[in-house]
Amino acid sequence: HFQDFDLATIYVSDAQYNRNIFFDTSPQAVRLYLLYNHWALKILLYFFILVNLSLAIFEEPALVSLPTWATMLVELLCLLVFTIRLVHYAKVIPREKFWKDPKNICIIVVLLLTLIDMIIYGALKAANLYSVRWSRVLRPLLLINVTEGRQLRRAFRSIRNALPEVSSVFVLFIFSVLMFSLMALKLLSKRGLKTIEGASYFTNYLEIVFELYVLVTTANSPDVMMPAYNANSIFALFFILYILVNTYIFMSVFLAVVFNNYKKHLKEEIRQLVRAKRHKMARAFGVLQEQREEGGPPVVSHENWNKLVQRARPDISNAHRELLWRVCDDSNQSFIGGSGTGPNCTFINTETSVVVVETGKVSFVQLADLLNIEVITLKSRPHPLQSLIPSFYESRLSRLLCRVVQHRGFVITFDLIILVNAVFIGLDEENPLISNSEWVFLALYILEILLKLYVFEPRAFFSKHSFWNWFDTIVVISALIATIINSALKSSGGYTSRQVLDIVFILRVLRLIRVVDRIKRFRAIINTLIRIGPAILTFGQLILVVYYIFAMVGMELFKNKVKFYEDVSNPEKAYCGNLLLKGSTFAQLNYCKNNFNNVVSSFILLLELTVVNQWHDILYKISYLNPFSSFNFLNPIPLLGTGFATVTHKSALIFFVLFHVMVVIIIINIFVAFVLEAFFVEY
Amino acid sequence: HFQDFDLATIYVSDAQYNRNIFFDTSPQAVRLYLLYNHWALKILLYFFILVNLSLAIFEEPALVSLPTWATMLVELLCLLVFTIRLVHYAKVIPREKFWKDPKNICIIVVLLLTLIDMIIYGALKAANLYSVRWSRVLRPLLLINVTEGRQLRRAFRSIRNALPEVSSVFVLFIFSVLMFSLMALKLLSKRGLKTIEGASYFTNYLEIVFELYVLVTTANSPDVMMPAYNANSIFALFFILYILVNTYIFMSVFLAVVFNNYKKHLKEEIRQLVRAKRHKMARAFGVLQEQREEGGPPVVSHENWNKLVQRARPDISNAHRELLWRVCDDSNQSFIGGSGTGPNCTFINTETSVVVVETGKVSFVQLADLLNIEVITLKSRPHPLQSLIPSFYESRLSRLLCRVVQHRGFVITFDLIILVNAVFIGLDEENPLISNSEWVFLALYILEILLKLYVFEPRAFFSKHSFWNWFDTIVVISALIATIINSALKSSGGYTSRQVLDIVFILRVLRLIRVVDRIKRFRAIINTLIRIGPAILTFGQLILVVYYIFAMVGMELFKNKVKFYEDVSNPEKAYCGNLLLKGSTFAQLNYCKNNFNNVVSSFILLLELTVVNQWHDILYKISYLNPFSSFNFLNPIPLLGTGFATVTHKSALIFFVLFHVMVVIIIINIFVAFVLEAFFVEY
Ligand code: NA
Repeated sequence: HFQDFDLATIYVSDAQYNRNIFFDTSPQAVRLYLLYNHWALKILLYFFILVNLSLAIFEEPALVSLPTWATMLVELLCLLVFTIRLVHYAKVIPREKFWKDPKNICIIVVLLLTLIDMIIYGALKAANLYSVRWSRVLRPLLLINVTEGRQLRRAFRSIRNALPEVSSVFVLFIFSVLMFSLMALKLLSKRGLKTIEGASYFTNYLEIVFELYVLVTTANSPDVMMPAYNANSIFALFFILYILVNTYIFMSVFLAVVFNNYKKHLKEEIRQLVRAKRHKMARAFGVLQEQREEGGPPVVSHENWNKLVQRARPDISNAHRELLWRVCDDSNQSFIGGSGTGPNCTFINTETSVVVVETGKVSFVQLADLLNIEVITLKSRPHPLQSLIPSFYESRLSRLLCRVVQHRGFVITFDLIILVNAVFIGLDEENPLISNSEWVFLALYILEILLKLYVFEPRAFFSKHSFWNWFDTIVVISALIATIINSALKSSGGYTSRQVLDIVFILRVLRLIRVVDRIKRFRAIINTLIRIGPAILTFGQLILVVYYIFAMVGMELFKNKVKFYEDVSNPEKAYCGNLLLKGSTFAQLNYCKNNFNNVVSSFILLLELTVVNQWHDILYKISYLNPFSSFNFLNPIPLLGTGFATVTHKSALIFFVLFHVMVVIIIINIFVAFVLEAFFVEY
Repeated sequence: HFQDFDLATIYVSDAQYNRNIFFDTSPQAVRLYLLYNHWALKILLYFFILVNLSLAIFEEPALVSLPTWATMLVELLCLLVFTIRLVHYAKVIPREKFWKDPKNICIIVVLLLTLIDMIIYGALKAANLYSVRWSRVLRPLLLINVTEGRQLRRAFRSIRNALPEVSSVFVLFIFSVLMFSLMALKLLSKRGLKTIEGASYFTNYLEIVFELYVLVTTANSPDVMMPAYNANSIFALFFILYILVNTYIFMSVFLAVVFNNYKKHLKEEIRQLVRAKRHKMARAFGVLQEQREEGGPPVVSHENWNKLVQRARPDISNAHRELLWRVCDDSNQSFIGGSGTGPNCTFINTETSVVVVETGKVSFVQLADLLNIEVITLKSRPHPLQSLIPSFYESRLSRLLCRVVQHRGFVITFDLIILVNAVFIGLDEENPLISNSEWVFLALYILEILLKLYVFEPRAFFSKHSFWNWFDTIVVISALIATIINSALKSSGGYTSRQVLDIVFILRVLRLIRVVDRIKRFRAIINTLIRIGPAILTFGQLILVVYYIFAMVGMELFKNKVKFYEDVSNPEKAYCGNLLLKGSTFAQLNYCKNNFNNVVSSFILLLELTVVNQWHDILYKISYLNPFSSFNFLNPIPLLGTGFATVTHKSALIFFVLFHVMVVIIIINIFVAFVLEAFFVEY
């Protein structure tokens, strides 16, 4: 009987959190499954995934160098944890299900390949041979394939579903670029035009294709047009038409196709989720059902229902549980009646009974959703001070204070104080008047919070949903602590810690943000943004996976080709430590830190490539310095204006263009589609 | 009775073309209204609007200079035409309606202001005083306010409706930019960082605000980040967060808000159109109705219906009209019954009669839509050659030929020929083999068209909807003519006309495009694009209006500040004819032609600003040279890297930022929203 409750609880919480795992229903497996879903184990798993991904910081090319044996040891530990987790999972679900699931196969393959790679790498390293840790690109796959990565898998499915349509538009788009390039070649190649660097303009077909592809992202506008436009104004028409067709129309069509697919797919996913949820709740009902009367419908008693809810959500109060029961059992019986799990229900003839049965079944099924609803207790609790010192709290003065704090004028006064504060922050803080004023503002903000706590019930003030109250209090208190530390440091030795000061500044500016919450229109927008926040985290993971893979590959291909020197006096700084970059605009623009020398700068570089501006420039600069430089794919000089005649390799271009297509055309569009849809639903 | 038909015809065609004009129903007004809607008068009106707008080409600052009296004379003629058209309109609709309509008031005000401006300008010019033709910015208002500008007015209403929500998001967005700027000021201003030009970095608040505003468009990425990033990698986080919030999230929210409003507004407009259409058809019914039986419902006889349709669409065939009648009169009577115009219909009791009455009414109302449907006659007409020379056309050889042409292999063969042709076009045409091959390809394409004409019925081949057949034939024949002219010119004097050759090249490349029609997936996308084409023209007008206004203002403010020289040897070319630009990157990048010196280069410059890339650079360069240069609003040196310490004026910045907000944030988003919606509906 005890195991029955375990099983029913699992079904309910699986339905509640939309888990979709076909576990074994044997008592032992059920207990293991309960353990498997324990929050501590999940956090442990994500911690080790994070550790595994973070190893890139310490591995060659490293941001912080650690000996190879240390990182390898940590990685082995991670692999061990993942293996244990997988074995645990294998014990929970039936064997045939386990081996049929591509997620599990994928994890096993990743673990094995990683192990093999580590052995090969260790052996080659020991023999002082060149070796590559190629299995590092596989690490993000674990993030996708762990059982908890449901949201992320859904996002990838979204992409996969959009792919056929996106690729047919993409082929058409490429065709358009190729046709325009051919036209540009015929119209412009024989005119003897020169770029600003004096190189020939639009004479090589592949070069034109690339230039026009870059123009789609607008990154080389208007430079790419200028030589032709300077020769004859009529050529501007060509570029205008090109931008209209390929930048505006085709990019909108990409968004339309991605958005369309996203919506279609989302509907289908939600339908499936609802179906699976009903199925699980019906199973939970089936486990707990009992026969009240001979031949009557199966029902779940109030007692069993109570036990179930207590196990599924141990944190909710008795009153809340009682409320849920009243919602479920609206016919005031001591049980919820149901009609079994299958669609072949046995209905009872009297009309009222039918209603009870149907209500009962629906009531039980909806429990999963009811458990997810946050019940906000809006009881007007008396202020604790009222019971502690009633004579004072109810005095005339105290009441007046309450009325003042609740008055609109109070809010407006503090809005004005924030505005004045904003001006003071903008002024030079080295003026002693200004820097001392900070104490006044801090005192005012603390006073405001104390007054509010005096007037409003503290538990209501700090309820789960009072985002801005929490935000205000945390920011003000942190600012107070940081300011005190800063002053203490300053007065003790005249020494000001830059880090502490930075934190003080950030907190000061953050304090101003809450002014947006005052205006109703803004509040609606901000609340929408806060609500879609968690889902944006899924996109964060998606981006992390793609960035990580590209960063790993990029680091292998381009590491230490471009160097950054902190030391200003170092003569090598002028050409990023690579003579090939001597006199290049890349070096002149101080782009040396845009390199693949460690995982952090790789990520930042990939972000710059996502933003697209200047990406062709960075691309060219880095792909020149390609280790495989042997293939003269494009003549780089016209675009660069630098004198070095290095050559580039196809694969380097493929790397960057692939990244552009993946991230800018697909992922960013999915992100925009997602924000659009979320806004339509929420706003 | 004759006038009744006029009136009914007008109601029907108003309903058909969604015109919404409450004209006078007196016989004289009706006749005038018929004339008013004549296509020739409409074309004449649009021609004069175009002439009026084109005057900017000839007025100072002119692309092609004409004496002031000449342009003024033409403008007076235009004003006369517009006045006559307006008077005509005033005669057509009731007086009180005319004066209540803001469109008419707007036109009158524009005409009067233009006249006043012309007089002032003429007088000042005669007295050799400085004068501005300020009324030129009003010209595009005529395009919006003429009765035919319905689509354009709808687009502007779209914008107006989206404005309140867009502006509240915009205020929030600006607040976010201001907060981030304040944070940047506090974090970065005291670090003594330098830009690549050695100027101080992020020390002036307004400068930071502007730089970060530009970063939203990504135009100065990654340059704006580099000094901070080079100082410490941690600052990259600030810029990443900034781009995430302001570029990705806020720009998506703008699109979401615009799209949401667009959809809402579109639905409402369509509902109103349908209502107005029904109302007009009910009126037409009311005009032609007659009483068949005493006390029976009013009906329209077949005879009258026929006359009405003949007048409303004189071009459709008798068979087509008969088809429409059968669709309308499905109860096989010789009349269409109805129940009057109001909602208080008198229903007849017998059930069948009620059906007749209702069907009749609906049938009549739907006539307006039926007239808009193109009936494609899919009759398999015999080939004309079959009746001319039946013995030959039905011979064995001829039939084999027909089968060959209809075979899939024929299509594939010509696709391959196109591909080979594409390669040949890409190769150097100075090779005699290549240039002669052109004749072979031309012959093959002509052969293909002739063969198709031999096999398929010519009228079906060149039907209205065979877009690609028309396209093919026109392109091939034009290419043939152009190639012959080119060869003739070449052989006659060895002289090759560049223009003719350009046309030949364009036509050659265009010939390749039809390959996309072969692939089914592409055809769907292309057809969608072709179908939304006409609506894109409305956007073209919208853009024209906004560009024209900005071009006129820009020309007054910035004309001849930056000069372009065709002559390479001119020493002034190096600094665009303005010593202030000596050594600037603007001049180094050959941007001199990006100026406001005439209406064509103004439009191209505005397009470059729409594309956004480098816009801050162009903006700065041009706003330096502002005539009102007296206000040190921003310290320009850090961004420019040029040594000149000129100052700029607020108003110039306002001009460019206003343009950016108007065009990039509002109009481009409406365009994207429109393409999205059209794609969802059509695809
Ligand atoms: Na850009």
